[in-house]
Amino acid sequence: MKADKIKILKTAVWKANMDLWKSGLVIQTFGNASGADAAEGVMAIKPSGVDYDECRWEDMVVLSIDSGEIIDGPLRPSSDTPTHLALYRAFPAIGGIVHTHSRYATSWAQSGRAIPCLGTTHADYFYGPVPVTRKLSTDEIKTDYEANTGKVITEYLSAATNQPFDVPAILVPHHGPFTWGKSAADAVHSAIALEEVARTALLTLSLNPEAVMPQELIDKHFRRKHGPDAYYGQKGEKS
Amino acid sequence: MKADKIKILKTAVWKANMDLWKSGLVIQTFGNASGADAAEGVMAIKPSGVDYDECRWEDMVVLSIDSGEIIDGPLRPSSDTPTHLALYRAFPAIGGIVHTHSRYATSWAQSGRAIPCLGTTHADYFYGPVPVTRKLSTDEIKTDYEANTGKVITEYLSAATNQPFDVPAILVPHHGPFTWGKSAADAVHSAIALEEVARTALLTLSLNPEAVMPQELIDKHFRRKHGPDAYYGQKGEKS
Amino acid sequence: MKADKIKILKTAVWKANMDLWKSGLVIQTFGNASGADAAEGVMAIKPSGVDYDECRWEDMVVLSIDSGEIIDGPLRPSSDTPTHLALYRAFPAIGGIVHTHSRYATSWAQSGRAIPCLGTTHADYFYGPVPVTRKLSTDEIKTDYEANTGKVITEYLSAATNQPFDVPAILVPHHGPFTWGKSAADAVHSAIALEEVARTALLTLSLNPEAVMPQELIDKHFRRKHGPDAYYGQKGEKS
Amino acid sequence: MKADKIKILKTAVWKANMDLWKSGLVIQTFGNASGADAAEGVMAIKPSGVDYDECRWEDMVVLSIDSGEIIDGPLRPSSDTPTHLALYRAFPAIGGIVHTHSRYATSWAQSGRAIPCLGTTHADYFYGPVPVTRKLSTDEIKTDYEANTGKVITEYLSAATNQPFDVPAILVPHHGPFTWGKSAADAVHSAIALEEVARTALLTLSLNPEAVMPQELIDKHFRRKHGPDAYYGQKGEKS
Repeated sequence: MKADKIKILKTAVWKANMDLWKSGLVIQTFGNASGADAAEGVMAIKPSGVDYDECRWEDMVVLSIDSGEIIDGPLRPSSDTPTHLALYRAFPAIGGIVHTHSRYATSWAQSGRAIPCLGTTHADYFYGPVPVTRKLSTDEIKTDYEANTGKVITEYLSAATNQPFDVPAILVPHHGPFTWGKSAADAVHSAIALEEVARTALLTLSLNPEAVMPQELIDKHFRRKHGPDAYYGQKGEKS
Repeated sequence: MKADKIKILKTAVWKANMDLWKSGLVIQTFGNASGADAAEGVMAIKPSGVDYDECRWEDMVVLSIDSGEIIDGPLRPSSDTPTHLALYRAFPAIGGIVHTHSRYATSWAQSGRAIPCLGTTHADYFYGPVPVTRKLSTDEIKTDYEANTGKVITEYLSAATNQPFDVPAILVPHHGPFTWGKSAADAVHSAIALEEVARTALLTLSLNPEAVMPQELIDKHFRRKHGPDAYYGQKGEKS
Repeated sequence: MKADKIKILKTAVWKANMDLWKSGLVIQTFGNASGADAAEGVMAIKPSGVDYDECRWEDMVVLSIDSGEIIDGPLRPSSDTPTHLALYRAFPAIGGIVHTHSRYATSWAQSGRAIPCLGTTHADYFYGPVPVTRKLSTDEIKTDYEANTGKVITEYLSAATNQPFDVPAILVPHHGPFTWGKSAADAVHSAIALEEVARTALLTLSLNPEAVMPQELIDKHFRRKHGPDAYYGQKGEKS
Repeated sequence: MKADKIKILKTAVWKANMDLWKSGLVIQTFGNASGADAAEGVMAIKPSGVDYDECRWEDMVVLSIDSGEIIDGPLRPSSDTPTHLALYRAFPAIGGIVHTHSRYATSWAQSGRAIPCLGTTHADYFYGPVPVTRKLSTDEIKTDYEANTGKVITEYLSAATNQPFDVPAILVPHHGPFTWGKSAADAVHSAIALEEVARTALLTLSLNPEAVMPQELIDKHFRRKHGPDAYYGQKGEKS
């Protein structure tokens, strides 16, 4: 892989991590963004446990998606790397992944409940509820924990229709949210929207525990922004 | 329409959009402010899907209120434009409109509940509950959705007394709030006040689900700031 | 009154208003701080309806506490001026007053409930619950509303023991909080502490509706900071 | 003790107090960080009642851990100094202590409830629930209150297994949280994590009052970051 391509990927992933940090979604060193170069078969990710305010673009770690081996970068990659690798392997269309412990999305994950689609803000980004994966078994926790986290996510997505982009977010129980997109920047946008949606859903249910949204309104808003009939933004679909 | 008048309108609408963004009420590209020049029969509005931090005053889009045709500006107008047009057509006194997905007002909209008037902060801005429109029918969602959103709002306001300025805000169910005023800046003020009022009402009901406010106190506070007996501010009524 | 004394008072009151604004407790033009010069028999207060970011120290309005007449300043004083005057007249030891519509304190006021003393943060500032005044009668609302708001506050304080400084805060039902202190800066400190205490009390009751705090711990914390046995801060009692 | 060692300790403790302040966990003068130099048998702590924005590193107060006597610094130490001393005496491995009145942790303390471990964010920092000490007796409140606060904390920790570092935080009922670590900076990290965890736990229980986390997942996350099998960060265990 040529040096200029590595630099482009590392810079994009570094910028996504910085945007994630500035968004207030991550606390201390909790959270990471990665990005893939599918043509080259590689991903870049934040190094493990490094403070965001000390992170430079050079510190990003580049790995082979196939083998998981480090190709570039002096540091150890995020401990969540096997989860990211599992997603890139299962869905080559995914170009970026974000994991956070953002407050409201994490609270839903800790509660074991899917986030219901209660309004157009949700439907603009996520076509229906944001689901929760099954729990990991005791064996899956003890051995290859991070890879198995990726396994329960890809298991869920492979069984669902129109994935991974109709609902580019999922909750791992007792843990927190993962989001993805066509690029690392996209995945950061989804993470920010998810937190907003998670917060508003919690508030809505405190005002009306029976709140539901009509399916035709969900369809309308999602299709206004996504797919062949999109008419939101300057170019139809906003990438 | 002369170039200097277009520039004045676009600049005012751009500034209102910037103030809205700085207020923290909008997330990502969700939200828009428009302003009208009634004498000229035009409105200006934010372009669709453009990031706030990249928005320049030149990017605002000017349209004929009557025909909805674009008069000035290189970009596509906000996808909510037909909603704004419906309001300007029905109420020529309206000089500015704001739509957001602000957290607390949106939570009330998603819950389908009107925001009750529980305190003087509310009564200073809104003379009684902030209502919820009826739901759109399936047909109204499928065809001309944004124009029909304007229709359910103007339907409600036309049937109410002393509208549109006694309660310059409304909630569209499963969606979010719209506010308005005599100018775009005014509509932004209402949007900020609405979010505060929505938040405080939710907190108040969590402390006392039976809370109500005496009508004479609502009257007193609203009339202290609005109408012929106003004595708040430096000029009686604050515009 | 000499020009230099007027300037000192106006500057102190302007600074208190700016600190109040920066604290995030006030929204738009809602909220005001005043300060008294008891020896001169005057108070200074924020002008009515002027935006905080356009307020200069020269804009503060100086009035006679006794007559309520304007002594200095080109603008109309805050519409809440009669409330401030009532408090200065009843309690000459009060040197500063703050009124806000801060979120959590206002929510308690709107709910009609006193804020119970549930922890040492509360007891450090307020010696027991922060009370709610009686409601104003219809006549008291219709005529001299702001002066009558001052009347229900001073009525409550005059009937209570060790006032006004044991609990330098009160809630007016359906309206919001007033705080005071030996200076305008002191009153701002109380307003900030009140909002924090109001928020924590609401959260505490959501975790344990039966929470109560032992009286001896309230005594200990209040007296650690106030009165002859104080030992907090660099000079015993922190002014 | 040599001047350069005093300066190093005071500077580290001052920096920890500044970081605490910037984190938003302390209001006004409520909260303090201290640090120990075990080899020298001394601790440094914030002076009492001094505003954070006026605090200089020179103002930190150095005391003998053994005798509690002031060794260096012109000001009175924090009124909570006896609590800090009790902890340093009981657990020489503790190198830093933080006390705050942060909102969510304080709400749990005021409610008298331990913070349950409901997710991996919690387990990454705290190996199980964050406990509440017993209440102080009336005598313990009236005499040597701050030292007795230290006594109930050390009493709890001495009876628990693997303390003080498996759960480097505790709640004192009706009061607030204390956290600690191998350094003052470490204790600040724990205080920030505790507040986040306290907030997320409250939100989780509002969504699912029955939420619990499997013990094997708690084990996995804690041991991923702490102890001989740690593999998080660049050096195994993050200090």
